Amino acid sequence: MAACPFCDESIHIAVFAKSEHCLAVYNRSPILRGHSMVIPREHYHTVLELPEEVYSDMMHFMRSVSGGLIKAFGASGINWTLQEGEDAGQTIEHLHFHLIPRKPKDLPEPGDWYPRLRENEVIDSDKRPTLSDKEMRHRVGELKPFFR
Amino acid sequence: MAACPFCDESIHIAVFAKSEHCLAVYNRSPILRGHSMVIPREHYHTVLELPEEVYSDMMHFMRSVSGGLIKAFGASGINWTLQEGEDAGQTIEHLHFHLIPRKPKDLPEPGDWYPRLRENEVIDSDKRPTLSDKEMRHRVGELKPFFR
Repeated sequence: MAACPFCDESIHIAVFAKSEHCLAVYNRSPILRGHSMVIPREHYHTVLELPEEVYSDMMHFMRSVSGGLIKAFGASGINWTLQEGEDAGQTIEHLHFHLIPRKPKDLPEPGDWYPRLRENEVIDSDKRPTLSDKEMRHRVGELKPFFR
Repeated sequence: MAACPFCDESIHIAVFAKSEHCLAVYNRSPILRGHSMVIPREHYHTVLELPEEVYSDMMHFMRSVSGGLIKAFGASGINWTLQEGEDAGQTIEHLHFHLIPRKPKDLPEPGDWYPRLRENEVIDSDKRPTLSDKEMRHRVGELKPFFR
């Protein structure tokens, strides 16, 4: 079994904000500028198994990260999505919410974010376009001031 | 401007669980059995404008409703989605999370729920298949025991 990519030390290059129990992580292969994820620091599979304290922290962090992403990217809205369990489309077994800040006419139809998200997730990570470490450091460096 | 369908008294036929500030509502036109929504009782447009107390209540209610839906429908997972603002695909100006319990092979691909959700939302409500009041009462009557 492959090691969890969200437990690996290498995730820290993409972290732009932290709460007590969670991390906000810029997506290596964003479907739109600002596409990020919120994950628990510890390895949990699903929302339903989170201890109360971690769940509460995660949901409050989700909202503050959303406000920061909207400001940082001059967005007018945001999408959240959770795929809880493999039968619901979860592909990485470490709980993660997708957050995608949105702007007017950033996609041909406002609802197009999801098919793109899915397309992005199911393609092998070595085949899809990803940010280099240099690009990631630059992006995360730009973001951090919005989350202090 | 049309009146808000989620503020209208007629919503109560579809309510199967309540928290202090929120309602769990069965979808009139479910894309899969169990497709429901969590909404605040008061008319708020977005997550970001919710008072802290209402947000906290909503997120805890989301999780307990998810557990109940999974049990009630013998599901193995669930999808959550939020479209925050019109540019993110929000079509009804009263905050609502979609919750869709999932089972193995309930759709050709686990990720197919979102295109269906979208298709469902953008079709005029008088054109898409909807549950009758009788069907809705039956469904809600079956669900309520899971949320006591």
